[in-house]
Amino acid sequence: FQRLASFIAHPRFERVILVLILINAVTLGLETSPAAVAAVGPLLDAIDRVILAVFVIELIARMAVNGRHFIRDPWSVFDLIVVAIAIIPATGALSVLRALRVLRVLRLVTAIPSLRRVVAGLIHALPGMGSIALLLTLIFYVFAVIGTKLFGETNPELFGSIGASSFTLFQAMTFDDWAGGIVKPLTEKGHPYGFVFVITFMVVSAFMALNLFIGVVVTALDE
Amino acid sequence: FQRLASFIAHPRFERVILVLILINAVTLGLETSPAAVAAVGPLLDAIDRVILAVFVIELIARMAVNGRHFIRDPWSVFDLIVVAIAIIPATGALSVLRALRVLRVLRLVTAIPSLRRVVAGLIHALPGMGSIALLLTLIFYVFAVIGTKLFGETNPELFGSIGASSFTLFQAMTFDDWAGGIVKPLTEKGHPYGFVFVITFMVVSAFMALNLFIGVVVTALDE
Amino acid sequence: FQRLASFIAHPRFERVILVLILINAVTLGLETSPAAVAAVGPLLDAIDRVILAVFVIELIARMAVNGRHFIRDPWSVFDLIVVAIAIIPATGALSVLRALRVLRVLRLVTAIPSLRRVVAGLIHALPGMGSIALLLTLIFYVFAVIGTKLFGETNPELFGSIGASSFTLFQAMTFDDWAGGIVKPLTEKGHPYGFVFVITFMVVSAFMALNLFIGVVVTALDE
Amino acid sequence: FQRLASFIAHPRFERVILVLILINAVTLGLETSPAAVAAVGPLLDAIDRVILAVFVIELIARMAVNGRHFIRDPWSVFDLIVVAIAIIPATGALSVLRALRVLRVLRLVTAIPSLRRVVAGLIHALPGMGSIALLLTLIFYVFAVIGTKLFGETNPELFGSIGASSFTLFQAMTFDDWAGGIVKPLTEKGHPYGFVFVITFMVVSAFMALNLFIGVVVTALDE
Ligand code: NA
Ligand code: NA
Repeated sequence: FQRLASFIAHPRFERVILVLILINAVTLGLETSPAAVAAVGPLLDAIDRVILAVFVIELIARMAVNGRHFIRDPWSVFDLIVVAIAIIPATGALSVLRALRVLRVLRLVTAIPSLRRVVAGLIHALPGMGSIALLLTLIFYVFAVIGTKLFGETNPELFGSIGASSFTLFQAMTFDDWAGGIVKPLTEKGHPYGFVFVITFMVVSAFMALNLFIGVVVTALDE
Repeated sequence: FQRLASFIAHPRFERVILVLILINAVTLGLETSPAAVAAVGPLLDAIDRVILAVFVIELIARMAVNGRHFIRDPWSVFDLIVVAIAIIPATGALSVLRALRVLRVLRLVTAIPSLRRVVAGLIHALPGMGSIALLLTLIFYVFAVIGTKLFGETNPELFGSIGASSFTLFQAMTFDDWAGGIVKPLTEKGHPYGFVFVITFMVVSAFMALNLFIGVVVTALDE
Repeated sequence: FQRLASFIAHPRFERVILVLILINAVTLGLETSPAAVAAVGPLLDAIDRVILAVFVIELIARMAVNGRHFIRDPWSVFDLIVVAIAIIPATGALSVLRALRVLRVLRLVTAIPSLRRVVAGLIHALPGMGSIALLLTLIFYVFAVIGTKLFGETNPELFGSIGASSFTLFQAMTFDDWAGGIVKPLTEKGHPYGFVFVITFMVVSAFMALNLFIGVVVTALDE
Repeated sequence: FQRLASFIAHPRFERVILVLILINAVTLGLETSPAAVAAVGPLLDAIDRVILAVFVIELIARMAVNGRHFIRDPWSVFDLIVVAIAIIPATGALSVLRALRVLRVLRLVTAIPSLRRVVAGLIHALPGMGSIALLLTLIFYVFAVIGTKLFGETNPELFGSIGASSFTLFQAMTFDDWAGGIVKPLTEKGHPYGFVFVITFMVVSAFMALNLFIGVVVTALDE
């Protein structure tokens, strides 16, 4: 058992896993090419199965060695989930899981310390943004409800429901085609002051995003 | 009277108000869905009236207890306004007030200390931006007048009045479809150098926005 | 003479000038409205002439009092230029000067100390950005020449000359409709790798703008 | 030999080279104008050949004087490459090299110390961004594979291959026409939840770009 522990912690083993992730990234990418599938489809499939098997065995070994610590380590749980996606039978409503198998490539983040640090840093900065994110959600909700009530009947494709309004507001927040694609249809359908609603939201949400940004900068500078 | 004061300041009472705001957020949202209104419309209405009544009583109690301090506290005044919107008879020109009833959900900001702090921080940073905002307004006005004089007759939909020009300039400031939607129509209507006007404005207003941004950053970093 | 000096430096006189600038801003704005011109056109014209006369007298007085210092003070020179625009006969090719008369409103910047400080701060930060601005110009020139040579014949409306290419590149730098409006026409006209050119420029110029931004931030933080 | 060394290091010689680069910039620019080529084409060509000859002799002299140091100095290697582009016979697949001759103008960066410093600063900041850039590449790859698998058959023009998907994702990252040009076609072709994919990518990649930005800021502030 001790030997298993030292085996999976060995740098050479880690390097093998790293190489397997990279090879798997290539085979999963090639699977999207009809030409590659026609030429070497069965080979790609075989490689994928072998690598998946190695990953499953590796994870079982790590679970056996680390026990509870495995489940408590978010990186291990991440590895477990992205590997598990490939094992769940992907039929019917779950057929989207087949496409998500490539998430396995994100194991590179777990495997490369510098990437791990970057991601950990980003995730660390998130809680400090909680209040602002909540505020932004609140603003989205309030504007989505107002937008749906004011413009839902005349412009259903843009503001027909809270969902549609939220999407339209997100578009406005990214400044994408807001003049021609959002304000213009409102004006044409009898809302000459629709621009007040859209521009107010844009200014408020941009100001919020600015603050979110400053929050991240300050957090990052402090570390 | 002393008992009323300790009652409305009690954490449990504050939590009840918080929960009522959240429930009200849901009912106000459901009101935008024809399906929900058809199914449980009268119920939504009843809940809304009950919650509104509680809010009115709560505000009257807070006014009675805090007296002058109530009116001087901007948060209390905010609560008062967003609740008052629902009581004003919303007919004719004021029918937009019905849609604004959802602003009541923003009481969450008053009720949750961390959100309150974020908003207070943002509002604190505003006065420091006064000069830059005034400058930006000035630039908008000057360019809007010039744009209206130069392009108003040939491109009335873009520069037909100071209002229209301001809208078009705001669109240019957000970099939204400025090449195809603003410069191109100018060029086609006999203004081969219209792009000089638009690009000059974009550079100046972007530079201004940059400075506004730096102002906020410096203010935020100093605190 | 001493009395003239103390008169034009008197706060009350400065306040009068400030009010005149504001009134002039309104009349110059109203001149863009056909309705206002039809109703009170001659009055607007009369006010404009009176205020212009006051400004001319004020500037002559300031020149007389301050002598050389007047010409060396960039703010005074600015005041002189924006007032002079209204006196130059605006006919033929100079008819654009009529529209530029509203630049006079920018005298508000000279008249209000806080605006003056903001503008001075911005102008102060400019020299520090000289190298980066030169570099950006260089990059624009090099890409404009390459673009004109590679795509000028097939896509003359986008890359027909260095001028046209520079405009198209500026559009790309602002991320405005670059996929549909720039790369797509290139691809359709036989340049399947046109996107490499456009994206390379976008990344390089955005990186440059980033650096320009950092330069301003650092300069501003140091002060 | 010593005289050659002191000659090419002489400020006057450096100034001559600088002027030649500027003249060359103008002639290379004029070459894009059919009118200029018709009028003074042979002259432009002659100037170009003479300047190129001077550059070649200058580089040979610098190589002779500096020996190994020449090859180890990245600025010298850069000068060598941009001059060499003009000498390589530009026929067939290499005809693009003719357009790249203008890269020679970038020798201005090598010749002007302040530009050199700016570029060196930017290049210095790059390694610190390596991890984030790798992470962004990884995210691009994973989303491109998923996008190709989910939407490749229904929307081949947007997600037909990993290359096409990467381009579409880059467009989404720049917020260019993402609502109308990416999400809308997905929705119309039977992917009502396509927006989840696009918005998730936009948020993640924007967050990444934010972090890249902060990385540069921190690096720049530390220097
Ligand atoms: Na855009
Ligand atoms: Na756009």
